[in-house]
Amino acid sequence: MSESDLLALMQQKSVASWRMQLARWIESTFLQRFIIAVILLNSAVLGLETFPGIMAEHGATLKWIDRTCLAIFVLELGIKMAAYRQLFWRNGWNWFDFLVVAVALVPGSGPLAILRTFRVFRVLRLLTALPALRRVVAAFLHSIPGLTGVIMIMAIFFFTAGVLATHLFGSAFPHWFGNLGESLYSLFQIMTLESWSMGIARPVMDVYPWAWAFFIPFIVIATFTILNLFIGIIVSTMQELSELPDPDLTSKDVEHILERMENDMASLRKMVKRSK
Amino acid sequence: MSESDLLALMQQKSVASWRMQLARWIESTFLQRFIIAVILLNSAVLGLETFPGIMAEHGATLKWIDRTCLAIFVLELGIKMAAYRQLFWRNGWNWFDFLVVAVALVPGSGPLAILRTFRVFRVLRLLTALPALRRVVAAFLHSIPGLTGVIMIMAIFFFTAGVLATHLFGSAFPHWFGNLGESLYSLFQIMTLESWSMGIARPVMDVYPWAWAFFIPFIVIATFTILNLFIGIIVSTMQELSELPDPDLTSKDVEHILERMENDMASLRKMVKRSK
Amino acid sequence: MSESDLLALMQQKSVASWRMQLARWIESTFLQRFIIAVILLNSAVLGLETFPGIMAEHGATLKWIDRTCLAIFVLELGIKMAAYRQLFWRNGWNWFDFLVVAVALVPGSGPLAILRTFRVFRVLRLLTALPALRRVVAAFLHSIPGLTGVIMIMAIFFFTAGVLATHLFGSAFPHWFGNLGESLYSLFQIMTLESWSMGIARPVMDVYPWAWAFFIPFIVIATFTILNLFIGIIVSTMQELSELPDPDLTSKDVEHILERMENDMASLRKMVKRSK
Amino acid sequence: MSESDLLALMQQKSVASWRMQLARWIESTFLQRFIIAVILLNSAVLGLETFPGIMAEHGATLKWIDRTCLAIFVLELGIKMAAYRQLFWRNGWNWFDFLVVAVALVPGSGPLAILRTFRVFRVLRLLTALPALRRVVAAFLHSIPGLTGVIMIMAIFFFTAGVLATHLFGSAFPHWFGNLGESLYSLFQIMTLESWSMGIARPVMDVYPWAWAFFIPFIVIATFTILNLFIGIIVSTMQELSELPDPDLTSKDVEHILERMENDMASLRKMVKRSK
Repeated sequence: MSESDLLALMQQKSVASWRMQLARWIESTFLQRFIIAVILLNSAVLGLETFPGIMAEHGATLKWIDRTCLAIFVLELGIKMAAYRQLFWRNGWNWFDFLVVAVALVPGSGPLAILRTFRVFRVLRLLTALPALRRVVAAFLHSIPGLTGVIMIMAIFFFTAGVLATHLFGSAFPHWFGNLGESLYSLFQIMTLESWSMGIARPVMDVYPWAWAFFIPFIVIATFTILNLFIGIIVSTMQELSELPDPDLTSKDVEHILERMENDMASLRKMVKRSK
Repeated sequence: MSESDLLALMQQKSVASWRMQLARWIESTFLQRFIIAVILLNSAVLGLETFPGIMAEHGATLKWIDRTCLAIFVLELGIKMAAYRQLFWRNGWNWFDFLVVAVALVPGSGPLAILRTFRVFRVLRLLTALPALRRVVAAFLHSIPGLTGVIMIMAIFFFTAGVLATHLFGSAFPHWFGNLGESLYSLFQIMTLESWSMGIARPVMDVYPWAWAFFIPFIVIATFTILNLFIGIIVSTMQELSELPDPDLTSKDVEHILERMENDMASLRKMVKRSK
Repeated sequence: MSESDLLALMQQKSVASWRMQLARWIESTFLQRFIIAVILLNSAVLGLETFPGIMAEHGATLKWIDRTCLAIFVLELGIKMAAYRQLFWRNGWNWFDFLVVAVALVPGSGPLAILRTFRVFRVLRLLTALPALRRVVAAFLHSIPGLTGVIMIMAIFFFTAGVLATHLFGSAFPHWFGNLGESLYSLFQIMTLESWSMGIARPVMDVYPWAWAFFIPFIVIATFTILNLFIGIIVSTMQELSELPDPDLTSKDVEHILERMENDMASLRKMVKRSK
Repeated sequence: MSESDLLALMQQKSVASWRMQLARWIESTFLQRFIIAVILLNSAVLGLETFPGIMAEHGATLKWIDRTCLAIFVLELGIKMAAYRQLFWRNGWNWFDFLVVAVALVPGSGPLAILRTFRVFRVLRLLTALPALRRVVAAFLHSIPGLTGVIMIMAIFFFTAGVLATHLFGSAFPHWFGNLGESLYSLFQIMTLESWSMGIARPVMDVYPWAWAFFIPFIVIATFTILNLFIGIIVSTMQELSELPDPDLTSKDVEHILERMENDMASLRKMVKRSK
């Protein structure tokens, strides 16, 4: 549910007018641009913090900017939550923003300290703040359901190959095929063709000379399946594009259509002549 | 031949009514779901068996579950064979199920013991049990015949390159190009581009400085052929999709369409006149 | 702005007639072919100069030819600038030619000496001199704006992953993930799948066993994004091709087409009646 | 010019009737199948000859079969040349067959002895003997001219990068970038992404820390160009397929066309309504 949908829903439910105004203010173009600027600043700071030399000299300043940016994000989310209340959670991007900011508030010590590293995901807020990028990401996510079939087959195929590889090579090569986890990792590496032969298959073949009969079919099937996944995406993308509703036909479009009709007619006429 | 086709055929041949009922029962949605659940359980067990730690503690339990699952599969196949008799073998998926189960019944010792490892292929029964996945697999298999030409050319090309590489480099590099088998494996590795230069071509070029004249054309032709294979699949997939079955049009329908089209033409003509 | 556009513009502005004649002369087919021949000769010389043996024997001759070619290029550019004056800079290809020639005139010693190496870019003048290649290059450059969205997402994704990798692995592997620059280079290498597992991920996993949870999603997302970039290019190329310019249809043409179509319809209807 | 064209041409020129009969006999289905069988036998022998063990035991027999096959090929070509005379050279495939057989007749000692290795190309005669494969090969060769532009750009780009790399890295890494030849080979390896980073770029960066500014753009441009080559082939293949003359329109095709027309009409009608 997009921001404009949320605003419409609020109007329907006739919420308190100050909440409407607050919501409109926080979604205004100016404030959105300000937030984008803050994200860019914060990203630059996060990038600079990775250079030990810069960190030694300007560490205190960088940390102060980082905290200020975080405070702005917390404020922004706080205003949104105050305005939208339970509707806030209806927008998937809000969930993302909330998690990314919440992670930075985790205490710096204790069992969850590792989560603080994930505050760099704040950079990804650019994807949710810029509508153009948000559309591309949405299109990515949109293309996943159509691939369920191939992904499930891939999972079954990997699972089977993983169990088989563990049984076949596990005892001699415990580091690569010691258990299902190790095997799946090694098979993923083999599927990406990284060092599959010199690094893995040839050493294995020194112990089990018939091992090529496992690795070569695995590679052929895995890459062929990836290929089909790939083609599936291309074909479905093209179909989607060809099924787009044409919102505004110009006179140029009419000419296009007429030309296409002409071609059809020509082939029909050919047939009619032949069938005489 | 699908299950429903088999059932229809049985009806035609008017087999004993208990066989019809048995066949319908074993193909019923409930039993099929039960079998899928058993396959999933068995897959989980097969996966857990690859972890030595878990195996040491719960090995006996896991083996017992594994055997129970196998017993259920044997029972299922037995019922199907009793119901369908010779028709059982008309369905390709049944052959697959039979082989996968039969392999698990091979004695654990003796010359065929290695075959028992193949019982992990039971996981692949998911592909035959879930109709959605079965369709994807069928589509995969369906796309192979159209590629025969390119695959044959690939085979001839690999064979020629393999013999040539054995003659050229076999004496100096027996481990890589010692005989046709070794050469074909090495050429497959080179085609996947894995360590082709640092691992193989550069050492070979230290002995035969002109060896690049073999390896570079080989890589260019091999990848170009793979590319054509790839394009062939894309194009044929798209053609198949554009030839979707259309509801049978009678000559009366054609007339109806022509009438509607003439009306459209009239209104178009009016619009053209107005736009003058 | 192409050469012919520039010439037309000069005519409009009614510049001195000697400038018009000079411009026409320098763009004449014969002189253009001569320049292409000089570029090819210069390319051959630049190639021969890389062989130390040839350089030792014929170095003086090669350098003399190189300088002569350069003199011809300077002369050509000088004439063009004299003829076109400020219009010279309106053509993007002219900028390219100017920079490539100017770089060769940099003094051979001093802080800018390294720039002299870039005189080999003179070979690239073939791309600007041959109209067929210029079109292909223009098509390449033309396809970039449509990819902005995916490229920006890629940049954000790489930046985030780079900062994250520096925080996670920087202390233990300073050579690969010591700062943002090192991390971005290593991630680019991992995206190309070069030694990602044997070379980087496995050593990292020896220290941080959970590191696969970073590398495998990174590879999957990066390659999936590249795939979408790829598909984007294919789809936009196909759309461009299907939107080929059509000769301007007047409303009279439309009427003509409609008449022809109606005649076709009539014959079709006859055929349908016959087939009853 | 195909065999049937040649036969037609001979008839036109009214050559001696025994030549016509000889040509028809040698091109008859039975003899062509016999030749294919001989090629397959010869291929098997060439394959077996690469196994030292088999060669030690049955070497004499294999060589005898090899020579017999060669004799049959010589005889076949001799008959064809006697029948077609100068027309023999009009068929490109005949040139290929002649070269492949001629190479086997080169004396086993002397400066040309290495050429004898090329007798394994006889296996490739399968491509010329089986019409189905011949068509696929012809389609491959057919797709090359359309790629001239991209291939030329690729060549110019590689040449420039090669000269540049030699100047930049040649002195420190003579084995990889010592002269233009070495550089071109290394750049080809880098384009295939084989060990480009761990094997080449990282060692180079230890000496020249800015070397990534050469390698990363090189990889991006090279793979992007290959991508465009790839897309060019897909698009041109699809266009060719969509421009195939439809030799026989069935009533099913008419229905297809009518449906397409209907869709066009519907969109036209939409426009007509809106424009009212």
